[in-house]
Amino acid sequence: MHEEKVALTKNQIAALRKAAETRSIQDIFVVACGGSLATLYPILYILDRETNAVHVSSVNAAEFFHNPPHRLGDHSLVILNSQSGTTPETVSAARLAHERGALTAAFTTVPGSAIETVVDFPIYYYDDPVNPYPLLLSIFPEVYQLAFSLVDLLNGSNCLPGMETAMEHLETVCQRAVSDFAPQAREFARKHRTEQLIYTVSAGLDRCIAYILTNCSFMESVWRHSSPSRRRTLPWRLRSCWKRHPCCGFSRARPLPPGRRAGCEVSAAGHR
Amino acid sequence: MHEEKVALTKNQIAALRKAAETRSIQDIFVVACGGSLATLYPILYILDRETNAVHVSSVNAAEFFHNPPHRLGDHSLVILNSQSGTTPETVSAARLAHERGALTAAFTTVPGSAIETVVDFPIYYYDDPVNPYPLLLSIFPEVYQLAFSLVDLLNGSNCLPGMETAMEHLETVCQRAVSDFAPQAREFARKHRTEQLIYTVSAGLDRCIAYILTNCSFMESVWRHSSPSRRRTLPWRLRSCWKRHPCCGFSRARPLPPGRRAGCEVSAAGHR
Repeated sequence: MHEEKVALTKNQIAALRKAAETRSIQDIFVVACGGSLATLYPILYILDRETNAVHVSSVNAAEFFHNPPHRLGDHSLVILNSQSGTTPETVSAARLAHERGALTAAFTTVPGSAIETVVDFPIYYYDDPVNPYPLLLSIFPEVYQLAFSLVDLLNGSNCLPGMETAMEHLETVCQRAVSDFAPQAREFARKHRTEQLIYTVSAGLDRCIAYILTNCSFMESVWRHSSPSRRRTLPWRLRSCWKRHPCCGFSRARPLPPGRRAGCEVSAAGHR
Repeated sequence: MHEEKVALTKNQIAALRKAAETRSIQDIFVVACGGSLATLYPILYILDRETNAVHVSSVNAAEFFHNPPHRLGDHSLVILNSQSGTTPETVSAARLAHERGALTAAFTTVPGSAIETVVDFPIYYYDDPVNPYPLLLSIFPEVYQLAFSLVDLLNGSNCLPGMETAMEHLETVCQRAVSDFAPQAREFARKHRTEQLIYTVSAGLDRCIAYILTNCSFMESVWRHSSPSRRRTLPWRLRSCWKRHPCCGFSRARPLPPGRRAGCEVSAAGHR
């Protein structure tokens, strides 16, 4: 039933690639606010590691608008994301990018919204928790498909078909993962449902997920205080808590009195 | 009494610039862990906005080593920072960059330490709270001087002398600021000294300071839970707290029961 939408997505990404082919793209900027910016992070991470043909930057939309990168111009591709299509900072950033001659594309769930009036290419995705579409049509698969479409364009490779096939299996793979890990997840939730503070830890490509988990899930949805940390750069105090509470990660991290830093030594041996 | 050290710093930055002149530098990577990476952020921010001649990225040292950028090579300048000169991830990253043919420089407080054995140019700075050097010799002024030295090299401009003069006035300016704001700071500390959770909010160039305040000052030094947030992408709940507690920023942010989201409307009017 969703074949038409899948085809639309593929065509939108293909159209953007075709337009990019006619330009000498040297810089790609991914631009949005908060969680919307986090969802674009795979474009930066994948291109940084797969090609030397362009340079990719991730920029907060308000900062992009008020203090734009010097390199922004007609050799730039600017990829934005506004779920509603109306986020004022992201629409302003899109307009500025367009005025500077950049090729512009915007992910959005709302056809006909404000951001569409200022970008060259909209890319629709679907995000409706009440009536969920297949994962294939949510934003991450589209972001990955766009990333590998650009890798192919820049490297002369042919990765996109493999990525598209992988995305077609995403629903099954995720359902299996949910089923396999549901007992552990429920047990974790049962034990820690009253925690008022949850730290999330991540590295590499997972940083976007940690941001979303911290800001969108824990803070916005279940109203818990939360903070993201990067693996290998954790504050000592949290590392020591981790040693003492291996079952629950960092969620039991609590202040120890200054001077009582034995945990640091344990961590120093265990983690450094 | 510190003239010799000031001269040494200037000479080290000049030597790095001279070496960079002999190469066709296309990419600059700033690489370190945690707070040390935060201190290098001005290089990225300033060069991004002042020149289109290079591309600058900020990369966590462990990620740089395990999953290096595709563009890393002999057209790269890699600038690292390890206060002790021994941080294993940063030393490994420096070694990898050197092996890939990049020009390498490392900020460090310890002459003769491990990182010096693998980089082309060490840049010494001073960081001893017990016996403080003038601010001119701490890392931020050196980072700013290096940033504008590179801007001058890439743009053919002459900003560095102005920056050096500014740095010579830093001690006086900071003492005046401390004296002017000490009463407010003490009042804030008195009111909130028992807060267990402190959010820091920042934008633009100040992001590096917010990271240091959050992770190095609040978490590491005074053992308080803390989380950084970016201005304009704050979770709604915190925005509403800010509205209700303008005097203390976000430090009083506490969970409100789900459903009680009146504050969001206030914020929607006030901030969006």
